[in-house]
Amino acid sequence: MQDLFFVTTNRNKFEEARKILEKHGINLQISELNIQEKKYPTEREVSISKAYAATKLLKAPLIVEDTGIYFESYNNFPGPNAHIVFDGIGYEGILKLLDGKNRAAFFSTTVTYIKPGMNPISFSGECRGKIVEKVSENISFAYDAVFMPEGAKKTFSEMTKEEKESFSHRKKALDEFAKWFKESKL
Amino acid sequence: MQDLFFVTTNRNKFEEARKILEKHGINLQISELNIQEKKYPTEREVSISKAYAATKLLKAPLIVEDTGIYFESYNNFPGPNAHIVFDGIGYEGILKLLDGKNRAAFFSTTVTYIKPGMNPISFSGECRGKIVEKVSENISFAYDAVFMPEGAKKTFSEMTKEEKESFSHRKKALDEFAKWFKESKL
Repeated sequence: MQDLFFVTTNRNKFEEARKILEKHGINLQISELNIQEKKYPTEREVSISKAYAATKLLKAPLIVEDTGIYFESYNNFPGPNAHIVFDGIGYEGILKLLDGKNRAAFFSTTVTYIKPGMNPISFSGECRGKIVEKVSENISFAYDAVFMPEGAKKTFSEMTKEEKESFSHRKKALDEFAKWFKESKL
Repeated sequence: MQDLFFVTTNRNKFEEARKILEKHGINLQISELNIQEKKYPTEREVSISKAYAATKLLKAPLIVEDTGIYFESYNNFPGPNAHIVFDGIGYEGILKLLDGKNRAAFFSTTVTYIKPGMNPISFSGECRGKIVEKVSENISFAYDAVFMPEGAKKTFSEMTKEEKESFSHRKKALDEFAKWFKESKL
């Protein structure tokens, strides 16, 4: 099987994806090309735009991913701009925005595969849940400390790695991609 | 004097800039190249990044601009992501975020000049003020209906074009640019 690159500067994301795809018999390599993200309303558009930018530079089969979190009370917000919004308004702002509102929210990851001369193809995975009213004490990552998946009694921050993985939007997207990739024998 | 391009897809912004620079004896042309904006925390970085992208395509002396609005209670927010944030949370979200907080805010425009083989140079103009507690009835543009400049008793939306221009952050940045441009005899 030919090499497949995951273009990311985030080694944790790479390690997570490498393990998931290994179970499908796919050997993932990292490419730390830094693709500056463009502004789009959803993570799907960001992911596709990153794939086009990466393939121009790398000229090899590759995947990229982008993740967003969406508050159902608002419109594609904060979406793929989750980091910038969190840096801007923090937990205080997030809780203010949802005060007295429907607190339903979901994470969505889109993995996009592209190889030279081929149009990109995307696979998305979601995790639905809600934004809780109080920030978890154990803060692992921005939104994880206020996001509780459906069917759970803990926020992502309060879960073990294995517990969190059972809900993982990123794992769902990667599993979908792997299924397609193996069937299409690329 | 050689031609100078303003790279923008916004004909209103072009018309505003053309008139301002005409008073300085500068003849501005429009180039409607669509440069997809990248994600950065301030409008200054967006403006510089746009200038580099535009000069690669246009290969002629040009200016670009980017504008952000900054709430002093938060960190570079919404900044250059003002449009995406407004589309996401609307007036309701903006007023919720500032409820009980310091309402000081400012608009900032950065105009960046670049020509082939030269580093870009940027000029910024600010307009300080506050976010009012009630949306103006006469809504001209997103934040204009909630922004009241220092020394004014009306929001931008409630002003005539001439009144608004006397506070204009964009005009300040363009005047600074024009002063430098004429002095440096480019």
